[in-house]
Amino acid sequence: MPTPDPARRNERSRRAILDATRALLDETGYAELTVGAIAARAGAGKQTIYRWWGGKSAVVLDALFDTVATGDVALPDTGDLRADLRLVVRATVAEFADPRLSATTRALTVETLSDETMAGEVRDRLLRPQLDAVKDRLRAGGVPADVDLDVAVELIFGPIYHRWLLRTGPLTEDYADRLVDLVMAAIGDRASG
Amino acid sequence: MPTPDPARRNERSRRAILDATRALLDETGYAELTVGAIAARAGAGKQTIYRWWGGKSAVVLDALFDTVATGDVALPDTGDLRADLRLVVRATVAEFADPRLSATTRALTVETLSDETMAGEVRDRLLRPQLDAVKDRLRAGGVPADVDLDVAVELIFGPIYHRWLLRTGPLTEDYADRLVDLVMAAIGDRASG
Repeated sequence: MPTPDPARRNERSRRAILDATRALLDETGYAELTVGAIAARAGAGKQTIYRWWGGKSAVVLDALFDTVATGDVALPDTGDLRADLRLVVRATVAEFADPRLSATTRALTVETLSDETMAGEVRDRLLRPQLDAVKDRLRAGGVPADVDLDVAVELIFGPIYHRWLLRTGPLTEDYADRLVDLVMAAIGDRASG
Repeated sequence: MPTPDPARRNERSRRAILDATRALLDETGYAELTVGAIAARAGAGKQTIYRWWGGKSAVVLDALFDTVATGDVALPDTGDLRADLRLVVRATVAEFADPRLSATTRALTVETLSDETMAGEVRDRLLRPQLDAVKDRLRAGGVPADVDLDVAVELIFGPIYHRWLLRTGPLTEDYADRLVDLVMAAIGDRASG
Protein backbone atom coordinates (compact mmCIF):
# COMPACT_ATOMS: atom_id res chain seq x y z
CA MET A 1 0.00 0.00 0.00
CA PRO A 2 1.51 3.41 -0.96
CA THR A 3 1.98 5.88 1.89
CA PRO A 4 -0.48 8.79 1.71
CA ASP A 5 1.01 12.13 0.71
CA PRO A 6 -0.12 14.67 3.30
CA ALA A 7 1.59 17.59 1.55
CA ARG A 8 -0.33 16.96 -1.66
CA ARG A 9 -3.58 16.42 0.25
CA ASN A 10 -3.00 19.69 2.13
CA GLU A 11 -2.38 21.58 -1.11
CA ARG A 12 -5.65 20.17 -2.53
CA SER A 13 -7.53 21.33 0.58
CA ARG A 14 -5.88 24.74 0.45
CA ARG A 15 -6.92 25.18 -3.19
CA ALA A 16 -10.47 24.02 -2.46
CA ILE A 17 -10.76 26.47 0.42
CA LEU A 18 -9.46 29.43 -1.62
CA ASP A 19 -11.74 28.55 -4.56
CA ALA A 20 -14.73 28.27 -2.21
CA THR A 21 -13.85 31.65 -0.65
CA ARG A 22 -13.74 33.37 -4.03
CA ALA A 23 -17.00 31.75 -5.17
CA LEU A 24 -18.79 32.74 -1.96
CA LEU A 25 -17.40 36.30 -2.10
CA ASP A 26 -18.96 36.63 -5.55
CA GLU A 27 -22.24 35.07 -4.46
CA THR A 28 -22.86 36.56 -1.04
CA GLY A 29 -20.28 39.31 -0.47
CA TYR A 30 -17.88 39.81 2.42
CA ALA A 31 -20.32 40.74 5.18
CA GLU A 32 -22.43 37.59 4.77
CA LEU A 33 -19.44 35.30 4.33
CA THR A 34 -18.71 32.89 7.20
CA VAL A 35 -15.87 30.46 7.86
CA GLY A 36 -18.54 27.76 8.27
CA ALA A 37 -19.90 28.40 4.77
CA ILE A 38 -16.39 28.29 3.27
CA ALA A 39 -15.66 25.01 5.04
CA ALA A 40 -18.94 23.46 3.89
CA ARG A 41 -18.38 24.50 0.26
CA ALA A 42 -14.77 23.30 0.27
CA GLY A 43 -15.55 20.01 2.02
CA ALA A 44 -13.09 20.94 4.75
CA GLY A 45 -13.33 21.41 8.50
CA LYS A 46 -13.80 24.86 10.05
CA GLN A 47 -10.90 24.06 12.36
CA THR A 48 -8.60 23.59 9.35
CA ILE A 49 -9.39 27.13 8.19
CA TYR A 50 -8.87 28.60 11.64
CA ARG A 51 -5.61 26.64 12.04
CA TRP A 52 -4.17 27.60 8.65
CA TRP A 53 -5.37 31.20 8.37
CA GLY A 54 -6.61 32.33 11.76
CA GLY A 55 -9.92 33.72 10.51
CA LYS A 56 -12.13 35.13 7.80
CA SER A 57 -10.17 38.22 6.78
CA ALA A 58 -6.90 36.30 6.31
CA VAL A 59 -8.44 33.60 4.12
CA VAL A 60 -10.22 36.27 2.02
CA LEU A 61 -6.95 38.14 1.59
CA ASP A 62 -5.18 34.96 0.51
CA ALA A 63 -7.96 34.20 -1.98
CA LEU A 64 -7.53 37.68 -3.47
CA PHE A 65 -3.71 37.39 -3.55
CA ASP A 66 -4.19 34.14 -5.40
CA THR A 67 -6.31 35.87 -8.06
CA VAL A 68 -3.60 38.45 -8.68
CA ALA A 69 -0.82 35.85 -8.67
CA THR A 70 -2.52 33.55 -11.17
CA GLY A 71 -4.47 36.15 -13.15
CA ASP A 72 -3.28 38.45 -15.87
CA VAL A 73 -3.05 42.00 -14.53
CA ALA A 74 -1.33 43.46 -17.64
CA LEU A 75 -3.09 46.38 -19.29
CA PRO A 76 -4.26 46.37 -22.89
CA ASP A 77 -1.90 48.16 -25.28
CA THR A 78 -3.83 49.30 -28.34
CA GLY A 79 -1.30 52.05 -29.03
CA ASP A 80 -3.79 54.63 -27.69
CA LEU A 81 -2.80 55.40 -24.08
CA ARG A 82 -5.86 57.53 -23.34
CA ALA A 83 -8.25 54.82 -24.55
CA ASP A 84 -6.42 52.10 -22.62
CA LEU A 85 -6.37 54.14 -19.39
CA ARG A 86 -10.05 54.90 -19.84
CA LEU A 87 -10.86 51.19 -19.89
CA VAL A 88 -8.85 50.52 -16.74
CA VAL A 89 -10.08 53.57 -14.84
CA ARG A 90 -13.72 52.93 -15.78
CA ALA A 91 -13.36 49.32 -14.59
CA THR A 92 -11.71 50.39 -11.34
CA VAL A 93 -14.35 53.04 -10.66
CA ALA A 94 -17.10 50.48 -11.38
CA GLU A 95 -15.53 48.04 -8.91
CA PHE A 96 -15.46 50.67 -6.16
CA ALA A 97 -19.04 51.64 -6.98
CA ASP A 98 -20.24 48.03 -6.67
CA PRO A 99 -21.64 47.63 -3.14
CA ARG A 100 -20.49 44.01 -2.80
CA LEU A 101 -16.89 44.50 -3.98
CA SER A 102 -16.75 47.76 -2.08
CA ALA A 103 -17.67 46.01 1.19
CA THR A 104 -14.81 43.54 0.74
CA THR A 105 -12.30 46.31 0.04
CA ARG A 106 -13.63 48.36 2.95
CA ALA A 107 -13.23 45.44 5.36
CA LEU A 108 -9.70 44.74 4.13
CA THR A 109 -8.77 48.41 4.39
CA VAL A 110 -9.80 48.40 8.05
CA GLU A 111 -7.58 45.34 8.65
CA THR A 112 -4.75 47.06 6.80
CA LEU A 113 -5.05 50.19 8.92
CA SER A 114 -4.99 48.19 12.13
CA ASP A 115 -2.17 45.76 11.34
CA GLU A 116 1.26 46.69 9.94
CA THR A 117 2.08 43.13 8.81
CA MET A 118 -1.21 42.86 6.96
CA ALA A 119 -0.53 46.30 5.44
CA GLY A 120 2.79 45.09 4.03
CA GLU A 121 1.20 41.94 2.60
CA VAL A 122 -1.64 43.85 0.96
CA ARG A 123 0.79 46.33 -0.53
CA ASP A 124 3.33 43.85 -1.84
CA ARG A 125 1.12 40.97 -2.95
CA LEU A 126 -2.16 42.63 -3.95
CA LEU A 127 -1.51 46.25 -4.80
CA ARG A 128 2.03 46.39 -6.16
CA PRO A 129 1.44 43.96 -9.08
CA GLN A 130 -1.51 46.07 -10.22
CA LEU A 131 0.31 49.40 -9.88
CA ASP A 132 3.34 47.93 -11.67
CA ALA A 133 1.15 46.80 -14.55
CA VAL A 134 -0.05 50.38 -15.03
CA LYS A 135 3.51 51.70 -14.75
CA ASP A 136 4.54 49.27 -17.51
CA ARG A 137 1.76 50.59 -19.74
CA LEU A 138 2.76 54.21 -19.08
CA ARG A 139 6.38 53.39 -19.86
CA ALA A 140 5.37 51.64 -23.10
CA GLY A 141 3.20 54.68 -23.90
CA GLY A 142 6.25 56.90 -24.09
CA VAL A 143 5.64 59.01 -20.99
CA PRO A 144 8.63 61.39 -20.76
CA ALA A 145 11.56 60.19 -18.64
CA ASP A 146 11.31 63.15 -16.24
CA VAL A 147 7.86 62.00 -15.04
CA ASP A 148 8.16 59.94 -11.84
CA LEU A 149 6.05 56.89 -12.71
CA ASP A 150 5.41 56.01 -9.06
CA VAL A 151 3.86 59.42 -8.55
CA ALA A 152 2.02 59.21 -11.88
CA VAL A 153 0.40 55.89 -11.11
CA GLU A 154 -0.94 57.21 -7.79
CA LEU A 155 -2.26 60.25 -9.64
CA ILE A 156 -4.60 57.77 -11.32
CA PHE A 157 -5.66 55.58 -8.39
CA GLY A 158 -5.29 57.98 -5.45
CA PRO A 159 -8.24 60.18 -6.42
CA ILE A 160 -10.53 57.17 -6.94
CA TYR A 161 -9.53 55.72 -3.60
CA HIS A 162 -10.02 59.10 -1.89
CA ARG A 163 -13.48 59.57 -3.39
CA TRP A 164 -14.53 56.03 -2.48
CA LEU A 165 -13.11 56.03 1.04
CA LEU A 166 -14.28 59.48 2.06
CA ARG A 167 -17.46 59.43 -0.05
CA THR A 168 -16.75 62.86 -1.50
CA GLY A 169 -18.46 62.39 -4.86
CA PRO A 170 -20.15 60.03 -7.33
CA LEU A 171 -18.20 57.11 -8.82
CA THR A 172 -19.50 57.23 -12.38
CA GLU A 173 -18.20 56.65 -15.89
CA ASP A 174 -18.27 60.40 -16.47
CA TYR A 175 -16.06 60.86 -13.41
CA ALA A 176 -13.66 58.19 -14.69
CA ASP A 177 -13.30 59.96 -18.04
CA ARG A 178 -12.75 63.39 -16.46
CA LEU A 179 -10.04 61.91 -14.27
CA VAL A 180 -8.29 60.29 -17.24
CA ASP A 181 -8.40 63.61 -19.11
CA LEU A 182 -6.65 65.38 -16.23
CA VAL A 183 -4.08 62.59 -15.87
CA MET A 184 -3.40 62.64 -19.61
CA ALA A 185 -2.88 66.40 -19.45
CA ALA A 186 -0.42 65.82 -16.60
CA ILE A 187 1.61 63.06 -18.21
CA GLY A 188 0.29 62.07 -21.55
CA ASP A 189 0.08 65.13 -23.73
CA ARG A 190 3.79 64.53 -24.21
CA ALA A 191 3.38 60.74 -24.51
CA SER A 192 3.36 59.00 -27.84
CA GLY A 193 0.54 56.52 -27.06
CA MET B 1 -29.97 84.70 44.68
CA PRO B 2 -29.74 84.40 40.86
CA THR B 3 -30.68 81.03 39.35
CA PRO B 4 -27.66 79.16 38.00
CA ASP B 5 -27.47 78.93 34.21
CA PRO B 6 -26.91 75.25 33.36
CA ALA B 7 -26.70 75.92 29.59
CA ARG B 8 -23.83 78.35 30.04
CA ARG B 9 -22.10 76.06 32.52
CA ASN B 10 -22.45 73.17 30.07
CA GLU B 11 -20.98 75.22 27.26
CA ARG B 12 -18.00 76.10 29.48
CA SER B 13 -17.46 72.41 30.28
CA ARG B 14 -17.79 71.44 26.61
CA ARG B 15 -15.15 74.01 25.62
CA ALA B 16 -12.82 72.89 28.43
CA ILE B 17 -13.15 69.25 27.35
CA LEU B 18 -12.47 70.02 23.66
CA ASP B 19 -9.49 72.23 24.55
CA ALA B 20 -8.09 69.51 26.83
CA THR B 21 -8.56 66.92 24.07
CA ARG B 22 -6.62 69.01 21.55
CA ALA B 23 -3.84 69.76 24.03
CA LEU B 24 -3.47 66.10 24.96
CA LEU B 25 -3.54 65.00 21.32
CA ASP B 26 -0.57 67.30 20.70
CA GLU B 27 1.25 66.14 23.81
CA THR B 28 0.66 62.38 23.86
CA GLY B 29 -0.97 61.43 20.55
CA TYR B 30 -4.15 59.45 19.90
CA ALA B 31 -3.06 55.99 21.04
CA GLU B 32 -2.01 57.14 24.52
CA LEU B 33 -4.99 59.44 24.98
CA THR B 34 -7.61 58.32 27.53
CA VAL B 35 -11.01 59.70 28.50
CA GLY B 36 -9.73 59.81 32.08
CA ALA B 37 -6.82 62.07 31.12
CA ILE B 38 -9.14 64.40 29.19
CA ALA B 39 -11.52 64.61 32.16
CA ALA B 40 -8.69 65.34 34.60
CA ARG B 41 -7.21 68.07 32.38
CA ALA B 42 -10.63 69.66 31.77
CA GLY B 43 -11.70 69.45 35.43
CA ALA B 44 -14.76 67.47 34.33
CA GLY B 45 -16.10 64.01 35.18
CA LYS B 46 -15.37 61.01 32.93
CA GLN B 47 -19.09 60.25 33.01
CA THR B 48 -19.83 63.66 31.46
CA ILE B 49 -17.61 62.82 28.49
CA TYR B 50 -19.17 59.39 28.05
CA ARG B 51 -22.66 60.88 28.36
CA TRP B 52 -22.09 63.74 25.88
CA TRP B 53 -19.89 61.99 23.32
CA GLY B 54 -20.03 58.24 23.92
CA GLY B 55 -16.27 57.72 23.87
CA LYS B 56 -12.78 58.74 22.87
CA SER B 57 -13.08 58.74 19.09
CA ALA B 58 -16.19 60.96 19.10
CA VAL B 59 -14.70 63.60 21.41
CA VAL B 60 -11.48 63.63 19.34
CA LEU B 61 -13.49 64.09 16.18
CA ASP B 62 -15.42 66.96 17.74
CA ALA B 63 -12.19 68.59 18.87
CA LEU B 64 -10.88 68.39 15.30
CA PHE B 65 -14.15 69.70 13.83
CA ASP B 66 -13.86 72.60 16.21
CA THR B 67 -10.38 73.44 14.92
CA VAL B 68 -11.64 73.58 11.34
CA ALA B 69 -14.76 75.55 12.29
CA THR B 70 -12.88 78.21 14.24
CA GLY B 71 -9.58 78.13 12.35
CA ASP B 72 -8.69 79.72 9.07
CA VAL B 73 -8.44 77.06 6.36
CA ALA B 74 -8.08 79.52 3.45
CA LEU B 75 -5.01 79.08 1.28
CA PRO B 76 -2.42 81.79 0.73
CA ASP B 77 -2.84 83.69 -2.54
CA THR B 78 0.49 85.18 -3.56
CA GLY B 79 -0.54 85.25 -7.22
CA ASP B 80 1.71 82.24 -7.87
CA LEU B 81 -0.51 79.14 -7.89
CA ARG B 82 2.38 76.66 -8.09
CA ALA B 83 4.15 78.20 -5.10
CA ASP B 84 0.94 78.34 -3.05
CA LEU B 85 0.06 74.72 -3.82
CA ARG B 86 3.60 73.67 -2.95
CA LEU B 87 3.23 75.18 0.52
CA VAL B 88 -0.08 73.39 1.13
CA VAL B 89 1.01 70.05 -0.32
CA ARG B 90 4.32 70.09 1.57
CA ALA B 91 2.45 70.83 4.80
CA THR B 92 -0.10 68.07 4.14
CA VAL B 93 2.61 65.53 3.30
CA ALA B 94 4.52 66.50 6.46
CA GLU B 95 1.37 65.99 8.55
CA PHE B 96 0.84 62.50 7.13
CA ALA B 97 4.54 61.70 7.66
CA ASP B 98 4.35 62.72 11.34
CA PRO B 99 3.84 59.51 13.37
CA ARG B 100 1.67 61.18 16.00
CA LEU B 101 -0.70 63.02 13.63
CA SER B 102 -0.72 59.97 11.39
CA ALA B 103 -1.92 57.75 14.23
CA THR B 104 -4.87 60.08 14.90
CA THR B 105 -5.86 60.15 11.24
CA ARG B 106 -5.45 56.38 10.98
CA ALA B 107 -7.73 55.77 13.97
CA LEU B 108 -10.36 58.16 12.61
CA THR B 109 -10.18 56.55 9.18
CA VAL B 110 -10.96 53.16 10.74
CA GLU B 111 -13.99 54.69 12.49
CA THR B 112 -15.05 56.29 9.22
CA LEU B 113 -14.84 53.00 7.36
CA SER B 114 -16.90 51.20 9.97
CA ASP B 115 -19.64 53.78 10.53
CA GLU B 116 -21.65 55.53 7.80
CA THR B 117 -22.88 58.33 10.08
CA MET B 118 -19.34 59.06 11.22
CA ALA B 119 -18.23 58.98 7.58
CA GLY B 120 -20.77 61.69 6.71
CA GLU B 121 -19.72 63.85 9.64
CA VAL B 122 -16.02 63.56 8.81
CA ARG B 123 -16.68 64.40 5.20
CA ASP B 124 -18.98 67.36 5.75
CA ARG B 125 -17.44 68.96 8.83
CA LEU B 126 -13.75 68.11 8.62
CA LEU B 127 -12.86 67.38 5.02
CA ARG B 128 -15.20 69.50 2.92
CA PRO B 129 -14.10 72.87 4.35
CA GLN B 130 -10.48 72.03 3.55
CA LEU B 131 -11.21 70.77 0.04
CA ASP B 132 -13.40 73.82 -0.61
CA ALA B 133 -10.58 76.14 0.46
CA VAL B 134 -8.32 74.57 -2.18
CA LYS B 135 -11.09 74.78 -4.79
CA ASP B 136 -11.43 78.49 -4.03
CA ARG B 137 -7.69 78.98 -4.56
CA LEU B 138 -7.79 77.06 -7.86
CA ARG B 139 -10.74 79.15 -9.04
CA ALA B 140 -8.95 82.37 -8.09
CA GLY B 141 -5.87 81.04 -9.93
CA GLY B 142 -7.73 81.08 -13.19
CA VAL B 143 -8.01 77.34 -13.77
CA PRO B 144 -9.95 76.93 -17.04
CA ALA B 145 -13.73 76.52 -16.71
CA ASP B 146 -13.71 73.08 -18.36
CA VAL B 147 -11.66 71.60 -15.50
CA ASP B 148 -13.93 69.92 -12.92
CA LEU B 149 -12.65 71.44 -9.67
CA ASP B 150 -13.99 68.56 -7.56
CA VAL B 151 -11.90 66.14 -9.59
CA ALA B 152 -8.91 68.52 -9.59
CA VAL B 153 -8.86 68.91 -5.83
CA GLU B 154 -8.83 65.13 -5.37
CA LEU B 155 -6.00 64.92 -7.89
CA ILE B 156 -3.98 66.79 -5.24
CA PHE B 157 -5.02 65.00 -2.07
CA GLY B 158 -5.96 61.53 -3.37
CA PRO B 159 -2.38 60.50 -4.20
CA ILE B 160 -1.09 61.65 -0.79
CA TYR B 161 -3.84 59.76 0.98
CA HIS B 162 -3.22 56.65 -1.14
CA ARG B 163 0.53 56.69 -0.44
CA TRP B 164 -0.02 57.22 3.28
CA LEU B 165 -2.79 54.68 3.69
CA LEU B 166 -1.26 51.91 1.60
CA ARG B 167 2.36 52.79 2.45
CA THR B 168 3.41 52.67 -1.20
CA GLY B 169 6.21 55.22 -1.03
CA PRO B 170 8.06 57.89 0.97
CA LEU B 171 6.23 61.03 2.13
CA THR B 172 8.96 63.60 1.54
CA GLU B 173 9.25 67.20 0.40
CA ASP B 174 10.66 65.98 -2.90
CA TYR B 175 7.56 63.82 -3.36
CA ALA B 176 5.33 66.82 -2.57
CA ASP B 177 7.03 68.94 -5.22
CA ARG B 178 6.84 66.22 -7.88
CA LEU B 179 3.15 65.82 -7.19
CA VAL B 180 2.52 69.56 -7.50
CA ASP B 181 4.41 69.61 -10.81
CA LEU B 182 2.14 66.88 -12.22
CA VAL B 183 -0.99 68.59 -10.91
CA MET B 184 0.11 71.92 -12.39
CA ALA B 185 0.68 70.21 -15.73
CA ALA B 186 -2.85 68.78 -15.49
CA ILE B 187 -4.64 71.99 -14.57
CA GLY B 188 -2.30 74.85 -14.13
CA ASP B 189 -0.30 75.26 -17.29
CA ARG B 190 -3.40 76.99 -18.58
CA ALA B 191 -4.00 78.82 -15.29
CA SER B 192 -3.00 82.42 -14.81
CA GLY B 193 -1.72 82.05 -11.21
